[in-house]
Amino acid sequence: MSRIVRFHETGGPEVLKVEDVVVPAPKAGEVQIRVKAMGLNRAEVMFRTGQYVTQPRFPAILGYEAAGTVEAVGPDVTGFAVGDAVSVVPCFMLGDYGLHGELVNAPAFGVVKHPENLSWEEAAATWMMFVTAYGALVDIANVQAGQTVLIRAASSSVGLAAIQIVNALGAVPVALTRRSSKRDELLKHGAAHVIATEEQDLVAEVNRITDGKGANVAFDPVGGPEVAKILDALGYLGIFFQYGALDTTPLAVPVMPLLGKDLTVRGYQLFEITKDPARLERAKDYIVKGLASGALKPVVAKTFTLDQIVEAHRFMESNEQVGKIVVTA
Amino acid sequence: MSRIVRFHETGGPEVLKVEDVVVPAPKAGEVQIRVKAMGLNRAEVMFRTGQYVTQPRFPAILGYEAAGTVEAVGPDVTGFAVGDAVSVVPCFMLGDYGLHGELVNAPAFGVVKHPENLSWEEAAATWMMFVTAYGALVDIANVQAGQTVLIRAASSSVGLAAIQIVNALGAVPVALTRRSSKRDELLKHGAAHVIATEEQDLVAEVNRITDGKGANVAFDPVGGPEVAKILDALGYLGIFFQYGALDTTPLAVPVMPLLGKDLTVRGYQLFEITKDPARLERAKDYIVKGLASGALKPVVAKTFTLDQIVEAHRFMESNEQVGKIVVTA
Repeated sequence: MSRIVRFHETGGPEVLKVEDVVVPAPKAGEVQIRVKAMGLNRAEVMFRTGQYVTQPRFPAILGYEAAGTVEAVGPDVTGFAVGDAVSVVPCFMLGDYGLHGELVNAPAFGVVKHPENLSWEEAAATWMMFVTAYGALVDIANVQAGQTVLIRAASSSVGLAAIQIVNALGAVPVALTRRSSKRDELLKHGAAHVIATEEQDLVAEVNRITDGKGANVAFDPVGGPEVAKILDALGYLGIFFQYGALDTTPLAVPVMPLLGKDLTVRGYQLFEITKDPARLERAKDYIVKGLASGALKPVVAKTFTLDQIVEAHRFMESNEQVGKIVVTA
Repeated sequence: MSRIVRFHETGGPEVLKVEDVVVPAPKAGEVQIRVKAMGLNRAEVMFRTGQYVTQPRFPAILGYEAAGTVEAVGPDVTGFAVGDAVSVVPCFMLGDYGLHGELVNAPAFGVVKHPENLSWEEAAATWMMFVTAYGALVDIANVQAGQTVLIRAASSSVGLAAIQIVNALGAVPVALTRRSSKRDELLKHGAAHVIATEEQDLVAEVNRITDGKGANVAFDPVGGPEVAKILDALGYLGIFFQYGALDTTPLAVPVMPLLGKDLTVRGYQLFEITKDPARLERAKDYIVKGLASGALKPVVAKTFTLDQIVEAHRFMESNEQVGKIVVTA
């Protein structure tokens, strides 16, 4: 019996239970991991409340990220031995696998031996944040030195990863945050500029920063009515990424800026990268090199124990964190 | 004095006048053309009614397309001699130049010696339709053999050009038209399938045609509420192009298909191609070869004389045409 996070109905953080479950042996294509640390994701909050792109089947397991040691490998799996230190790149849909528990099975496809300079907590925090930001900014948009990138919800783990990657590319990261309370922390984490969208004029600020040219890329996990303003702040051939749906109302895209600036509005989930072996390999290579050089470094906001999983989800919903929420097993 | 189409206020077709005007000598960077035939564009209707991306300054000239012979060249212009047969690729904004008249100046950048197998009427009809469709489908989307492309307003000249290009690429052109009255004509012009969107279930038909995979690309000059259905009919990594704004209400883009299928919504005007010398050269090369081989052939819907310019605009607004409306000088 192993202690696993499960839930039997959708709802608030309190529906999460740590339950004793018999974890089956890993099947073909799977690796079993003795978990040391888990990363929390906004997607898991949406999955728990029934608002994600997939719906839970009860009893539901969840969790996209974990790091630990290999406990067993499935029949056909090569390249891993019992005891290897590994972490998991999210490459499955929630509900098919769930990595939040003491002992879990994961698809071998996404299991990696992470750089040795990472702690368990950092390894559990690495892959969602860096692969998500890398996929949009490097793989798809091919951001160039000198370009300007608007990063919404910049204090999230993916937002901070985007700041680091944009800096590594020699481009200019502009953090968008609702109120100025996180300004100093975002500057400390590498933002070249911070715009508090509820207190400042977004379009005027971006025009000031870019000498009137507008931004090249925007990277947004929220959506909703604010997007029209972000599109106004983009320049010619600008690309707007929506990579999350914290606001699920349809995007209202004004036609004249769309046409007049030949804009791109791009839906994006990291699975576009992680489901494609060639693109995933390039992503891992870029991130492992960045972690090794120190250009990229996971940011852990706060650590909880497995017994505090409800509090950990509650903390995520508070939006007070800067960086990744990690749970230790 | 030469006879030029002008208007002194925005409004219906009747605001257009054919007026005697002294046409100045071509300036540096300009070619003067004795016009034989002119192509009409939806953009000119929008410009005339004040709904285009640029606003007219009165007295306003208009016209993106013309073919004729070189009458004079500006001081620094090389590569053209008086008497050369030429046509013009739209590469300027309406109001800066206007090619509808007997004698006009055009920016040398967009002037081409067209293939000799084209009539004046065909040469005047070529560039807007083929460069617009080429830019989206070949330059940007890189449509591959076997892919499915949805073409809205398929009986327009650009729609017919898209059908020809999609066929030339070995892909499957699916014509979207409001009612089935133009079905036979669209099949005759090369559509593999025709979907009458007011009479058939668009998503069900596209799923049937694509074995449930959805279409790869949609190419739409209209916009508006119908777009949500077109996005539903796209498959994974589908690209939706909006290249005109017949409906100027903001696009309502549902978030879940955008994210779940990693869709791209792309604003596009042919100036993205024609303003960029390298991309314009590739476009001309592709189109000239296609015209020479017969894979591409301009479709002229109906021909009017210059004195019938009001009737020609009225015919465009009737939406009865299949192909390009041409006016002869």
